[in-house]
Amino acid sequence: MPEFKVHYIDHTGRAEPIRMILSYGRIKFEDIRMDKEGFIKLKPTLPLGQIPVLEIDGQMIPQSIAICRYLATLVKLNGDDAEENLRIDVAVDTIIDLQKRLLNFVNEKDEEKKKTMEQVVVNETVPFFLKRFNDEAGDNGGFIAIKRISWVDILFICVYEGITNMLKKDMLADYPNLVKAKNNILAVPTLREWIKSRPENKMNTFDLKNEL
Amino acid sequence: MPEFKVHYIDHTGRAEPIRMILSYGRIKFEDIRMDKEGFIKLKPTLPLGQIPVLEIDGQMIPQSIAICRYLATLVKLNGDDAEENLRIDVAVDTIIDLQKRLLNFVNEKDEEKKKTMEQVVVNETVPFFLKRFNDEAGDNGGFIAIKRISWVDILFICVYEGITNMLKKDMLADYPNLVKAKNNILAVPTLREWIKSRPENKMNTFDLKNEL
Repeated sequence: MPEFKVHYIDHTGRAEPIRMILSYGRIKFEDIRMDKEGFIKLKPTLPLGQIPVLEIDGQMIPQSIAICRYLATLVKLNGDDAEENLRIDVAVDTIIDLQKRLLNFVNEKDEEKKKTMEQVVVNETVPFFLKRFNDEAGDNGGFIAIKRISWVDILFICVYEGITNMLKKDMLADYPNLVKAKNNILAVPTLREWIKSRPENKMNTFDLKNEL
Repeated sequence: MPEFKVHYIDHTGRAEPIRMILSYGRIKFEDIRMDKEGFIKLKPTLPLGQIPVLEIDGQMIPQSIAICRYLATLVKLNGDDAEENLRIDVAVDTIIDLQKRLLNFVNEKDEEKKKTMEQVVVNETVPFFLKRFNDEAGDNGGFIAIKRISWVDILFICVYEGITNMLKKDMLADYPNLVKAKNNILAVPTLREWIKSRPENKMNTFDLKNEL
C-alpha cells in the first residue's frame, strides 16, 4: 500500500469523505491540518492551488471527488460492475449539485437576497433532492445508490453533516429511508472509531459524533 | 448491447461528449433532439428534471459526466487500472471546474461586471487551466490524462469547442501539446465520421467540423 497523507485545513469540509473512506478500509494515513498561513505557503506547490490534496508516495493529487472514487476502489466501496458504478456516480453528482446550491446560499453576501434564497433552499431545493434520495434508499434497503454500502453513502453522511450546519437544522426527520441510511453508515465499526477519535470540529455546531 | 437514446436540445452542450463516446465505439443510439416545448413536456418525467438523459432500455439516466464514465467503460475509453482512472477523473473534474467558471461569466447579467470578468477569464482563468493541461499533454504524448486516448480527451475537445464559442476566440494556439491533443482526437475515424455527419449546430459560430 502506498504512503498516504491528506492535506487540508482543520475542518471536515471536502477532506472528510477522503479521511472517512481511508478509515473505513483501515488504510493508515497522515492527517495533516494546516492554518491559513500554512495554506498560503503550500498553495504555489499544489497542482491546482487547491486543497484538499491526497499525497500518494510524495505525489500531490487534487480534486476530492476523483480521490474518493480512487480510494473507494482500494477499499471495495465501489460498485461490482459498470451498472452499479453508474448508479453510484449519478448519486455522487447529484449530491454535489445539492451541495453547490447550498454553498451558493451560504456564500451570498446580500442579506436581503440571502433571506429569499434560504426560503427556496429549505422549502424547495433540499426537499426536492432529499425526496429523490429517500426513494432510492427505499429501493436499496437503506443505502443511497446500490443494495449495500458504497462510497456515495460516505459522501452523503458528510454532506448531511455540512447541510445541517449550514441550515442550523436537521432536515432528515421526514425521510425515514435516509434516517435508515444514516444509521446504516454510522453502524460501521471503522467509521464509528474514526468519528469518535477525529479532532473536534470547531467550525461546526452539529457533529456526527453526537449521533453515535 | 442495450438500446440507447440520448435526449437533449438541438445543440452540442452537455450531450455532445455522450454522443461522441457512443460514436467512438460505434454503439448505435437514437439522437433525440427536442425544442423548448418538448422539454417542458418531458421535464416532469425526468429523474432530476434535467437534460441530457441517457435512456438505457427504457430507463432514464441523468448526470452527463456519470453517463460518460459509464459509456467509457463500454467502449474501453476508461483507464487500464485504478491509477489511470484517477488521472482521468482528476482531469475531468478540472475541465468541469474550468467550464463552470466560463459559464459564470457567460451567465452574468450585469454588463459592467461581465466586462471585468471577461478580462479575468481570458487573461487568468483560461491560461491557468490550459497551461496545466498543456503540461500534462506534454507528458502523455499529446493526450490529456494518460498515454493514449481516454474519455477525458473527448470531454476536452467538446469543452474546447464550447469555450471557443463563448469567448469568440481560439485559445489553443499558445499550447502546442493541446493542439497535438486536438489533432490526435480529430484523427480518430469514428469521431471524424460523427462530427462530419452530426446535425449543424445553429447556436455556434465555431464548429469542430471546420477543423477536420
